[in-house]
Amino acid sequence: MIDLHAILTAVEALIRQAGQKIADTTASPIHEKSGHFNFVTDTDVAVQEFLRENLMRLLPACRFFAEEQENETLTDEYTWVVDPVDGTCNFMRHRHASCISIALMHMRQPVLAVIYQPFIDELYTAIVGEGAYLNGHPIHVSSTSFKNALVDLGTAPYYAELADAVTYCFHTFLTQAGDIRRVGSAALDCCNLASGRSDIFCEPLLSPWDFAAGALIIREAGGVFMMPYNTEIDFGKPACILAANPQCASRALEVVMKAKELIK
Amino acid sequence: MIDLHAILTAVEALIRQAGQKIADTTASPIHEKSGHFNFVTDTDVAVQEFLRENLMRLLPACRFFAEEQENETLTDEYTWVVDPVDGTCNFMRHRHASCISIALMHMRQPVLAVIYQPFIDELYTAIVGEGAYLNGHPIHVSSTSFKNALVDLGTAPYYAELADAVTYCFHTFLTQAGDIRRVGSAALDCCNLASGRSDIFCEPLLSPWDFAAGALIIREAGGVFMMPYNTEIDFGKPACILAANPQCASRALEVVMKAKELIK
Repeated sequence: MIDLHAILTAVEALIRQAGQKIADTTASPIHEKSGHFNFVTDTDVAVQEFLRENLMRLLPACRFFAEEQENETLTDEYTWVVDPVDGTCNFMRHRHASCISIALMHMRQPVLAVIYQPFIDELYTAIVGEGAYLNGHPIHVSSTSFKNALVDLGTAPYYAELADAVTYCFHTFLTQAGDIRRVGSAALDCCNLASGRSDIFCEPLLSPWDFAAGALIIREAGGVFMMPYNTEIDFGKPACILAANPQCASRALEVVMKAKELIK
Repeated sequence: MIDLHAILTAVEALIRQAGQKIADTTASPIHEKSGHFNFVTDTDVAVQEFLRENLMRLLPACRFFAEEQENETLTDEYTWVVDPVDGTCNFMRHRHASCISIALMHMRQPVLAVIYQPFIDELYTAIVGEGAYLNGHPIHVSSTSFKNALVDLGTAPYYAELADAVTYCFHTFLTQAGDIRRVGSAALDCCNLASGRSDIFCEPLLSPWDFAAGALIIREAGGVFMMPYNTEIDFGKPACILAANPQCASRALEVVMKAKELIK
């Protein structure tokens, strides 16, 4: 059995070091990836390599999944799931809305999560069963009703076939709930929901490194984390993600299920 | 003739002081205003009062327009146009995406502009004819093409009759340009466009305090600032705002004019 508290302390130090690399970078060479408007920078790759080396030293028997590499199938073994720069487009455009996301998985579920936003020095942490924290202070989802909900909506820009479904969500939330935000970092969207800065978050297709850490932080903050288009939660594959405070969850689920009919 | 450089120096000091008040506030009583999802906090009112008092001391003959008061008609005289907290909802929700916006108008045009984002200490300044600056460094709009444009889209949430038009813009930009961001502060949207962090900004209805300072910063950064639903630019009234880098302006204008047909 590993000591999750000791691991958390070590990961916090590592993620702050990695975050400094991101915050200190004024320009990083950009490369296009497959899919529309999908990019990787040299900083993504360098931060991933730094984290891979140090996280594997911390737990040598652990497997390692990350955005900027080919990944095998998720198993029951301990596995790091890492996004070195979530919000790469924001990072390229100096929008100060990016983060590093690290989850430790066991039995295919996140058991430890750390997300760091280096530009405003915000560190979100969670260990399964022990609550969620922002810079050491406990956080909890909001209790806002659907009618007044602030919705962080992901646009899934890499997938043209999802644009109509996303647009349906946009129009429905704008007219039936409060207002929309579109940050451009799914991990930060999860943190916003967990800390009560929004009331609903959804995006029709995300990858495990986008949501693995965020899912645990949301659950530990009292939020509902769903994969509404799957028969069960599976952190090993891309999925539609819906998260909400308990008051908003059922209405938000109706919207997202209706949107599914518009996927081409 | 007033000395705009001396005024700018004084306003910079004032806006930093006011920004500190916003950044230091952990909770501020919230009140609803007319319109859907429209709020004012005690901080909005306190910051406006602080700025009114000090800006009027700086230029006693000046008129004073601001969001949280009744305003007269804009004239050719020198007039301060102030938004004490642009992004009030973000401020209420601790999203760290709010700013103070101050414009000095003369002959109904902005001649001096200062916008301050206190959470990341970014100060945008412009004097007419002298360029735009971020923390003292010159800024310029991007040269990104429409196909790859990042679009800051305002949702005009207070006005239900505009939701279909906004949704048309959302879908069209998402499928024909790069991707969408929705920040929740029109003044920061203007600053993003001016500093090349986005390529297009539009919102179908904004008030003068939302865009007066931003318009000058955009123009001085080489951007195109339009009121596409008006026959001429008028800083005295609410308007639809479209701003873009010169490469994206005509395609973006087509989208916004097509959206006008959907206003109820």
